[in-house]
Amino acid sequence: MSQWIAGEWVVGQGEPMNSISPYNDEVIWQSDSASVAQVDAAVAAAHSAFLTWKKTTFAEREALVLRFAELVKQQAESIAEVIAKETGKPMWEARTEAAAMAGKVALSIAAYHERTGQKQREAAGNQIVLRHRPLGVMAVFGPYNFPAHLPNGHIVPALLAGNVVVFKPSEQTPVMGELAIKLWQQAGVPDGVINLVQGGRATGVALAESKGIDGLLFTGSANTGHLLHRQFAGQPDKMLALEMGGNNPLVISPHYGDVDAAVYTIIQSAFISAGQRCTCARRLYLPPGDNGDVLLAKLLRATKNIVMGDPFATPAPFMGPQISLEAAQGILAAQAHLQSLGGQSLLEAKAGKAAFVSPGIIDVSAIRELPDEEYFGPLLQVIRYQTFEQAVELANETRFGLSAGLVTTQDSEWAYFVDHIRAGIVNRNRPLTGASGDAPFGGPGASGNLRPSAYYAADYCAYPMASIEGRETELPETLSPGLSL
Amino acid sequence: MSQWIAGEWVVGQGEPMNSISPYNDEVIWQSDSASVAQVDAAVAAAHSAFLTWKKTTFAEREALVLRFAELVKQQAESIAEVIAKETGKPMWEARTEAAAMAGKVALSIAAYHERTGQKQREAAGNQIVLRHRPLGVMAVFGPYNFPAHLPNGHIVPALLAGNVVVFKPSEQTPVMGELAIKLWQQAGVPDGVINLVQGGRATGVALAESKGIDGLLFTGSANTGHLLHRQFAGQPDKMLALEMGGNNPLVISPHYGDVDAAVYTIIQSAFISAGQRCTCARRLYLPPGDNGDVLLAKLLRATKNIVMGDPFATPAPFMGPQISLEAAQGILAAQAHLQSLGGQSLLEAKAGKAAFVSPGIIDVSAIRELPDEEYFGPLLQVIRYQTFEQAVELANETRFGLSAGLVTTQDSEWAYFVDHIRAGIVNRNRPLTGASGDAPFGGPGASGNLRPSAYYAADYCAYPMASIEGRETELPETLSPGLSL
Repeated sequence: MSQWIAGEWVVGQGEPMNSISPYNDEVIWQSDSASVAQVDAAVAAAHSAFLTWKKTTFAEREALVLRFAELVKQQAESIAEVIAKETGKPMWEARTEAAAMAGKVALSIAAYHERTGQKQREAAGNQIVLRHRPLGVMAVFGPYNFPAHLPNGHIVPALLAGNVVVFKPSEQTPVMGELAIKLWQQAGVPDGVINLVQGGRATGVALAESKGIDGLLFTGSANTGHLLHRQFAGQPDKMLALEMGGNNPLVISPHYGDVDAAVYTIIQSAFISAGQRCTCARRLYLPPGDNGDVLLAKLLRATKNIVMGDPFATPAPFMGPQISLEAAQGILAAQAHLQSLGGQSLLEAKAGKAAFVSPGIIDVSAIRELPDEEYFGPLLQVIRYQTFEQAVELANETRFGLSAGLVTTQDSEWAYFVDHIRAGIVNRNRPLTGASGDAPFGGPGASGNLRPSAYYAADYCAYPMASIEGRETELPETLSPGLSL
Repeated sequence: MSQWIAGEWVVGQGEPMNSISPYNDEVIWQSDSASVAQVDAAVAAAHSAFLTWKKTTFAEREALVLRFAELVKQQAESIAEVIAKETGKPMWEARTEAAAMAGKVALSIAAYHERTGQKQREAAGNQIVLRHRPLGVMAVFGPYNFPAHLPNGHIVPALLAGNVVVFKPSEQTPVMGELAIKLWQQAGVPDGVINLVQGGRATGVALAESKGIDGLLFTGSANTGHLLHRQFAGQPDKMLALEMGGNNPLVISPHYGDVDAAVYTIIQSAFISAGQRCTCARRLYLPPGDNGDVLLAKLLRATKNIVMGDPFATPAPFMGPQISLEAAQGILAAQAHLQSLGGQSLLEAKAGKAAFVSPGIIDVSAIRELPDEEYFGPLLQVIRYQTFEQAVELANETRFGLSAGLVTTQDSEWAYFVDHIRAGIVNRNRPLTGASGDAPFGGPGASGNLRPSAYYAADYCAYPMASIEGRETELPETLSPGLSL
């Protein structure tokens, strides 16, 4: 009973699928994916529910998401356990994700009012009113790296705005998808307002191609995102919000301040979540000379010391495994590719048990044409630069534009960086992976389609309806030229 | 010397083109369109100018657009004359367009600050900063119906945000395009920050296909807009903002109040600008019985009385011609088509001299499958409904969703309408063609790609850059689990 359609749990009629804990290869869930017909049924159920859901008051919808938040808080520990089990991320980190999931509700309510909601003023006897209206059936495609928090960041604003949802979790994290839906069910979401379809590529294609959807909110790889963009060609009426990856640069100024704190910031930027965050630093620009050498030596030592391990291990590890064996092999292949191009491994990433890969640091300064790819794991490329301006120029040499960072104590360098860097998340002296909940999230270039999410998710969950209203029609004393009644 | 590229007026190297006054067939301008190479040169000039323009302060850019607004005000009468001459719209109406062009500047400055600009707050020792950054080279495609105001509504916000522009006016209104550029030149816009390319379809295709553009802001037909959407498939990084048309319904309740005022509102909705506004009412839903009959009779009489004439005629006409003979023929063909489907002309639209078409009203209640097309001229379709709820349902039977209106004195009917109607501009007892300058403009469905313009143009002229900033890196007393330095 893995699909939730029109308020009923039903058996999937598509291909078999399962969920494997990537730290011990244990199969923790087995089921069947949704068939194309089931995807269509889910979309039809959503559409049918939309007709009444869109007429609910904001207060009713708000009450539902607040009940959901309460349940998430109550069951935070079980949520964290599911996340940890399914993604392999350490429990302490999984707990922060569960907390973010609950925290998203208050932020989304605030964003609804600030970015959308209703405004009214009087002008020359008219009421000038701005309302916002839901779009309809929103397909939500979740990623595996934050299987609770990220789809939730689409679902909550979509529901608040009066939309209905068909949610397809990542095929790597169906259990968390199912748990989220059970919490919504417990919160009392009306039948059909949220529907769950589980599956991989075939299910995703069926959902994206369904004529009945009014929008698709996607978090995932740049490749899939670009495919979706092509698939939506000629359908400008459908809302498409793509959150893709980055090839994110972190520039260390010669004025980096305290060396340990700088190293700590780099490690948090590159290796948190085992490098599986879209904002993770992929390219590290280090200053020339002793200054850079000292930092690099400390970075190598600290990275070598990173404790990797099972999510429930004691003492707790910093890093878990990659999401799958395939993902782990992909990182090792990327490392081998960079080595073949002339990259020098300073710390070689190595395969561990199951889907574990130890953190790798590779000096790619000698590579003439550095591949502009997102290696979604714990593989940090180091480039030694000559001048600060050159570092910023190199940092911008990417088709992506998600995040970028600078470590410096010099305000003038920061001002220069902010003026020149092309990215949507740009942090100073803070991990690249940090982002404020009340800020938009996204970046230019191949990182998305300029529909920033997080606090701005409200924008793509509604369309504005602008009105000029008068109690009665008006007949002016002087009619327009050329008119008589 | 019809092209303005990199601050130089140059001769077009493409096909010959001209501009014809549609009220007397006079050729008022002859020149050559831009070649593909010239389009590329314009994009390259813009890109090169971007490198310095994006570094200007907001105050510098604001000063430029304010100088431009001053010039527009000073030369408002000449601008109105050019508009009137080139589009045929009456001088009194052309003057309102010139005024809107100047007024757009203050609105765009306000929108820049409210929708984009910079925000900053402190949290836990961090600065949480939100900045906005320009996208780059914006191609602006202007329409013919508001050849001054509508492209200006893209150009001003684009420049304020720090973008550069390649502007292609409608091939029907090159003279107004040239005049606008001359005003920018007079205002002192740096070379290459705005570029002008003149031409028709070939020039448009070359500009849209140019690899160097970072965005395309389009106002025009749904057909062209959908083609552009297909053309941009797989390029999610390019900003595409489509403002297309509508098949806009105006519903008259049985409680329409004063009959003359209702008739006046209908005429302003359907026939202003000779029906060549994207928000014009196309479908009029009238109540059954005597109530509707009385209104319809008065509407027919008043419409028959509409004075049509040359833009500079005295006394002034209400309506000018269509933009071209082809457009005029298109409206007559649409009327013939509706007649062939069973429509009954209550007032037949007739061809006049040059591109004139007199206003037509056709009862299409008997047509089983009413074509869902935008007839961009003075042809109003009347449908007699049975119940108010049915009228709203019929009003929603369109793939478009730009504007919709209700004439009623009953608050409960208005509440129902607002809850059920699907459109972006929804007015009560006011002409459908009215819109507030501080509101977003656009609608769902085939009317655009959910990038509303007007006050929200600021949104698609910039991307947000969110930062967390600290003066120095931080080393917490307790490191994350599994880390040691």
